[in-house]
This record gives sequence, C-alpha cells and structure tokens, in this order.
Amino acid sequence: MTRQSRSDEQWMLRALAVAANGPEADANPRVGCVLVDPDGVLVAEGWHEGAGTPHAEAAALSTAGERAAGCTAYVTLEPCNHTGRTEPCSSALAAAGVARVVYAVSDPNAAAAGGAARLTEQGVTTEGGLLEVEAEALNRSWLHLMRTGRPWVTWKVATTLDGRSAAADGTSQWITGLEARADVHEQRAGSGAIIVGTGTALTDDPHLTARRPDGTLHDRQPLRVVMGQRDLPPDAHLFDDAAETVHLRTRSPRDVLAFLAGREVHRVWLEGGPTVAAAFMADHLVDEIVAYVAPVLLGRGRPSVSDLGITTIADALRLEPTDTRIVGRDVRITAILEESR
Amino acid sequence: MTRQSRSDEQWMLRALAVAANGPEADANPRVGCVLVDPDGVLVAEGWHEGAGTPHAEAAALSTAGERAAGCTAYVTLEPCNHTGRTEPCSSALAAAGVARVVYAVSDPNAAAAGGAARLTEQGVTTEGGLLEVEAEALNRSWLHLMRTGRPWVTWKVATTLDGRSAAADGTSQWITGLEARADVHEQRAGSGAIIVGTGTALTDDPHLTARRPDGTLHDRQPLRVVMGQRDLPPDAHLFDDAAETVHLRTRSPRDVLAFLAGREVHRVWLEGGPTVAAAFMADHLVDEIVAYVAPVLLGRGRPSVSDLGITTIADALRLEPTDTRIVGRDVRITAILEESR
Repeated sequence: MTRQSRSDEQWMLRALAVAANGPEADANPRVGCVLVDPDGVLVAEGWHEGAGTPHAEAAALSTAGERAAGCTAYVTLEPCNHTGRTEPCSSALAAAGVARVVYAVSDPNAAAAGGAARLTEQGVTTEGGLLEVEAEALNRSWLHLMRTGRPWVTWKVATTLDGRSAAADGTSQWITGLEARADVHEQRAGSGAIIVGTGTALTDDPHLTARRPDGTLHDRQPLRVVMGQRDLPPDAHLFDDAAETVHLRTRSPRDVLAFLAGREVHRVWLEGGPTVAAAFMADHLVDEIVAYVAPVLLGRGRPSVSDLGITTIADALRLEPTDTRIVGRDVRITAILEESR
Repeated sequence: MTRQSRSDEQWMLRALAVAANGPEADANPRVGCVLVDPDGVLVAEGWHEGAGTPHAEAAALSTAGERAAGCTAYVTLEPCNHTGRTEPCSSALAAAGVARVVYAVSDPNAAAAGGAARLTEQGVTTEGGLLEVEAEALNRSWLHLMRTGRPWVTWKVATTLDGRSAAADGTSQWITGLEARADVHEQRAGSGAIIVGTGTALTDDPHLTARRPDGTLHDRQPLRVVMGQRDLPPDAHLFDDAAETVHLRTRSPRDVLAFLAGREVHRVWLEGGPTVAAAFMADHLVDEIVAYVAPVLLGRGRPSVSDLGITTIADALRLEPTDTRIVGRDVRITAILEESR
C-alpha cells in the first residue's frame, strides 16, 4: 500500500466519524465530508444534520470557502446529482474547484444517483468504494430501503436463557434488568418507527416512547404504529402528546412497511406481541433480531417465540450473529436473518 | 502507588502467566513462581506441571541455585507447609535464603496451609493478597473443592435462541455449528470428569472424549461418569480404551460429586441429559452454565431445559453472565449461579 492510499483511508475514516454525528433515525442518510488540501492539511469537514439541512458536502464547502480549490473531498456517500432541497453536490464540488473526490458507497437512490459520472464529466478525478463496508454499516437501514423499497426491520426479543417470556403462572415482571430496558430505549431512539399489534396495545397500554435513564424524552421520538383491526380506547397512553401515533387497520406486515416507506422510515423496531412478530417472520420481513437474553432459568412457562409453523430442523430459521455483549445483568445478541445478509 | 509496588504487581502478573502453563484438569492447582533479585532482575521462574512433579517454588529454586539468596519470590498461591510428595515449599524458600515472599491467594487446603506463618517464623518477610482476584480466577474450581468439599460443576446447555433443543418432529442435527462443537471438546479437555445419565448413554452411545479439530485425542482425557440405575451394554463406546469410565449406580448428584471429590476432581462438565441436569439443579449443585446459543428459531419443539419445578417468576433461577462471545456461527454465554458467586 502506498503512502497516498494509506492517507486516503485515514481521511475516509475521519469522514465516517463525522458522518456519525448525524441523526440515525432521519429520513436522510448519515453522510460526512472532509476537505484536504494538496499538502495533506485538513481544510474543512461537514456532516448532514438531517432532512431540510445542508448536505455534508455543502457544509464542508461553506466552511472552506475559497480554500476548497484544489482540495480532495472524502465523502462517505457518492455526492448527489439531484436538485432537491439543495443544489446537486456534484455541481457544487466542481464549481468550488475541488480537484478530486473519493467516496465510499455509491448512491442507490435513483433520484440522486449519477453524481460520480457528473463529476468526471466536469474534469474532477473521482474514485469510489474506499471503506465501502464501513460506510454500508453506517447507513445499513437507509441503503436497505433504497435498494428494496422496504424498511429494515429489527425484531426485539426478550427471553430467558431457556426460551421463556413468563413463568408457568404468567408472572414475568423484571425478567430483564434496568440496563437492558435502558438499551431498548436507545434502540427506539435510533428507529424511525415502532410497531406493536392491537393486542399488546390493549393488554399493556404501553407508552412506546424513547426515554433517557432520567426519564426525560429523547429529542426525536419514533412514530408509534399500532397494527390490527381492533379499536383502541382514545385515552390509551399511545395517544398522548409525547409522540405521533398511527393506527393501521391491517394485519398485513407488507401494508405496514409500504406505509412506512412512504413516510421515508428506513429503520423499524418491532416490539410485538407474538402474533405480529410471527406474521412478519412468516412473510420474511424481519431482517435482524436483537435478543435480550436474561440469564434466568424457568424450566417451563410461556414460550418467548410463538409457533412459526416450523416442524422439522431443516426448516429452522437460521441467523448470523453480528454482536453479543453483556448489558447489565443480561446478554444482548444481535443477529441478522440469512436472507438479509 | 510507589515504584516498588507497581513492580510487585508486574512480577505477580508474570507469575500468573507462567502458572497458566500448568494443566487445568489436574488434581493440583496451577501455581507459578518468579524469583527476582534486589536489583529487580529476573533470576528464575517455575510452574507446577501437575501431581507428582515439583511445586512451582521448587522448580524456580532449582533453576536459581545459589542466586536465590536475597531474592523476592512472587508466588500465585501461598507456599505450602505440607510434607507430601515434595518437602514444604515454605522451608525450601527459607533454606535457599529468599528474603521476601509475595503471594496472591491463601492456601485453603487444611493439610497444606500455614506456609506464610512458617516463613515469617523463619525471618522471611511475607505479604499476601496481591492480585488475589486474578489468582482466584486461575484456580476457581480447585479453590471451590478445597473450600466446599465438592467439585465446581459446569452445566453445558445447547439451545436455539428460543429455547429449543429439537424441532417438533424430534429432528435436531447440527443445531450448533462446528466451532461450538470444537469448543465443547476444549471444555471437556479442561475438566476432570464428564457426567451423563444412563438415558443419554443408552440413547446416544456417545464417546465423551476430548478431541482436537483434527480428530486426535487430547493428551489428558476427563473421567467419563455415567450415573443411574440402568445397565449399559459392554460394547458401548463409553467402554472403549480412549479414557476411563465409571458407572455409578445412583441417581443422587451429591453421591456422584462426593465420589469425584475423592478422586480429587475439581472441575466437572455436566453434559446431561435433561433428567440428570434437573436433578443437579434441584439440589443446587450447578455452579456455572455454559450455554451454546444457536441463532436459530423454531417456534416450537423440544424445550432445551426441562421442568425445574418452578411455577412463578420469583422462584426463577437467576445467573450472572461472566462472558459472552461469538463462537463460529453460534453465541456462547457463560454465567454463574448467584449462590456460587
């Protein structure tokens, strides 16, 4: 590896780091841009703060001013070619005199793609694919929505080590600990929507908000979605002012995801209950599982996952673990469905 | 912290590292000894290779010869005061002119304890308790046997993420992957005995040996223990020449552990089946669980843990996770029973 390419990678890592300052649950992807002059000196950096605010490239160019001329721009996503809320970034970079653009992931958004070609036409050296895997991970759910037309669905499972969600007599209080419950709130805050069925809404009367450990609400709240035919009482906690709630009178996971795609939601947190989760699984619409495994043994009791119509081991749903860690007194396992890899 | 005490800790870390060269499944504990002269120069180190070989202190003193005079000895376990297979280490250290002895854990073995007092009587400066937690972890199961009179029991659980060990039709092949199965063989190799019930022995005809991934046997094999009243066929794999096997015609976990304590076994690997495991759990004789969690969903099927007589959440058996990691395509969770902490 040459000194130059090592340096490219370091600057792209910095662009990825600044990109992560952006909001995870926004309709737009998280993007970072770093401008570096020919002597290898950092001139400016910028990131996208979410829909309605300047793109990362525009933010960096604005800081750099005339010093952008001759620079290399490191951008985590292919600069857009789309005149939307802002001018196309490809044009802005060329107009500012940027000599070279290195980006990580190609833009899969049909309305915005073509930026690299536009830059090349305008005489800017353009290279793609640097740290593509890392950049994919940063916007996995957004890229999934762009490529498949449906949001990335993460199913939250809470279970004892032996697969139970309640004891034989139905008691289930505090199976998982405080830290695991705090982690769930972090996951909600990073999601565009939370889905539950009318059964859970009626039985538990949940708030489904994203709160910090001190009880205060996160600045962004996910859209609360209840699916199912049954009526909900107007005084349910779900209808309070803490966040927006929609009741979709359908049992079809596909309809719910189409609605959410229309709302530009790319990350969905599926909380249950068992009927809703089984419906998503049956339609192959779960991409990932986050399981909070309480190191508790019950021996018998209510199963944490209900019947999925599987009778033989060859039909078992296999996942690939991507992370495991101890969260307080529980263990969290993240795994993706093999078909979503 | 003074320079001297920082240096003490570094030398004890080295003693712990050399101690780990010893065999885990041996009747004796793993012990390391490092001799350092007054200028802070390493003179010699030694570790215990198992019953019938020199103690760590004797090994280090033998290497050091006359250079031991005036040294500080760092030993992971209090030097013994017991004339057994070797002379008492406390006497040997004093006779060699060692000026100071720093040890980590006190010897809980009634027959061997008192070494520190003996050293002090002979004019050797003696300090205990340095890196005690780390040294406890190195010989946790041996210390447990010395303190309680019974071996440390680790129950191996294999389960899907939703608590199943087989599908509804009974099929269960390859729920966990190759790497998890290789890990089980490593765990067996580190154990003094493996326990199964006659049910498992008759149904599965297992070998219960510890093998390397290439299929060859580890140098040390755990004692294979079958418990239960039923007869076993003389041509069972358990009666091959690969390792010793005993059939204990009892259903009492307490009897089995007493037998194993008599054999100086301190770490027991409990493989099942469900009846045996439930009996150990009911008698509060499981200290630790190692669960191989396959990221597989079945929805229904045979439960991985059988009835434990628990009907309400307040009676659930709670564990504390001590480690979790991805092993191949599975997740391994290690957790200890709260009463064994």
